[in-house]
Amino acid sequence: MQALDAALSSPKSPALDTQALADCMEACAACELACLACADACLDEPDFVSLRRCIRLDLDCADVCAATARLLSRRLDGDAKLLRSMVEACARACATCGAECHQHAEHHEHCRVCAEACRLCAERCGRVLRDLPDTYGETHPPVSGHG
Amino acid sequence: MQALDAALSSPKSPALDTQALADCMEACAACELACLACADACLDEPDFVSLRRCIRLDLDCADVCAATARLLSRRLDGDAKLLRSMVEACARACATCGAECHQHAEHHEHCRVCAEACRLCAERCGRVLRDLPDTYGETHPPVSGHG
Amino acid sequence: MQALDAALSSPKSPALDTQALADCMEACAACELACLACADACLDEPDFVSLRRCIRLDLDCADVCAATARLLSRRLDGDAKLLRSMVEACARACATCGAECHQHAEHHEHCRVCAEACRLCAERCGRVLRDLPDTYGETHPPVSGHG
Amino acid sequence: MQALDAALSSPKSPALDTQALADCMEACAACELACLACADACLDEPDFVSLRRCIRLDLDCADVCAATARLLSRRLDGDAKLLRSMVEACARACATCGAECHQHAEHHEHCRVCAEACRLCAERCGRVLRDLPDTYGETHPPVSGHG
Repeated sequence: MQALDAALSSPKSPALDTQALADCMEACAACELACLACADACLDEPDFVSLRRCIRLDLDCADVCAATARLLSRRLDGDAKLLRSMVEACARACATCGAECHQHAEHHEHCRVCAEACRLCAERCGRVLRDLPDTYGETHPPVSGHG
Repeated sequence: MQALDAALSSPKSPALDTQALADCMEACAACELACLACADACLDEPDFVSLRRCIRLDLDCADVCAATARLLSRRLDGDAKLLRSMVEACARACATCGAECHQHAEHHEHCRVCAEACRLCAERCGRVLRDLPDTYGETHPPVSGHG
Repeated sequence: MQALDAALSSPKSPALDTQALADCMEACAACELACLACADACLDEPDFVSLRRCIRLDLDCADVCAATARLLSRRLDGDAKLLRSMVEACARACATCGAECHQHAEHHEHCRVCAEACRLCAERCGRVLRDLPDTYGETHPPVSGHG
Repeated sequence: MQALDAALSSPKSPALDTQALADCMEACAACELACLACADACLDEPDFVSLRRCIRLDLDCADVCAATARLLSRRLDGDAKLLRSMVEACARACATCGAECHQHAEHHEHCRVCAEACRLCAERCGRVLRDLPDTYGETHPPVSGHG
């Protein structure tokens, strides 16, 4: 994905595994769209009533993935604890949504595809969380000056 | 805000303080736009170099606020632990961004306004977090059926 | 809304009716959330099948409103023709979604509220479109230098 | 991209070139992130002052691309004229942003990458616009019932 190259070509790079961050950003973007497409397709299914929770989790997951991808694109100078919180929330959203979609995967191809996108995104979020040192961002506390 | 009335008029309501959720949603939307306007205004300031971190935190905070407001609009059947994670992330984003903006508030009215929007949003996120019972959503774990 | 004050306090102001822009931005944000809340509430209605188109138009309208509000927050130096295109798209999204919701307004309070939010947003978009001079932005064509 | 498969596996398909829509959705998502990464990288460049317009156009383009991708994920029953408006706005955003980035492409790799993402996205938007029949969506005017 080209955003990766753009991120890699920025003047300042964090002491992080850039590839892991770029992979995660890409998976978030793909998961967002898979969730939205799944939600839309669910609306037309005959067993719609049993898919209501799936639709809601799809929409939630899409929004969290979208925001997470955007934060990952700006990783250079931000608040690493916020990044960690968001990536954790994203991993959770993907796990919950993916589990729900998995339950419908046999009957609906869009749920199967979405479950797989969620699985991949959760996995890549996990890798970022392992890579993010606990102390990353510690140099950027909102210090002094406003007591 | 009209979204509040729409949320209140939905057929099923959670066992939560609906007003607190609606207030939080409204504060998230207002904070998102205050952050974006602040980031944009910072770009034209003569002391831009000292505002770079402010711009990045503004943009991060705007994205987290936007996603949080969207999740709050869908609170009926979702994953409450995800909602909690997002509201926590949002409170953190607002605290960090607000603290940064506060440092520039004397010199830049847009930072002062943004700091105040962040403060209000963080406060309302905090109220939602206090109200959200730990067990809320416990009936919706991604259980069995896909081992 | 505080974003208004932030926008007004930016160092450079366009030759536009700032109040009209701020009103439009606020209406976009409110309409986005009313649409999302309406879509979510529709999912639980017994006559869900007749609300499928309403849900899709709600979700589309929410996304267009969200993007339009964000562009309005950055109005100082952008591409005014793009702003015009987006505000036109937003007015159209609100008109279509509002008309659909209006048809269900008697039976569903969330549709009535959403229709009203759409009407207000479309009206404010219309005012911005009338105010935006055709020549606004003409000084920013992507000219020369890359033939 | 997996969203493509999800879209293709939905129960109802429009009389459109599904592949063109999926390609466009994917390009929008990639362009959004390339724009955000470029804006972020620009903030750290020594010649920042000459990149202010680039940053704003990047942020605008990212928001329009994001909304367009979301609409494309829900193409089954929506308002085709709205889809057309958004894809046109997206093509315009990409053309303007791409032209600006092109001017900085020699000096900044992130601008070169972003210009290329914009070019591809504009091209794919153009293909969707050629494919969208003028009459598509004509069956969904917000007719009667609310005079």
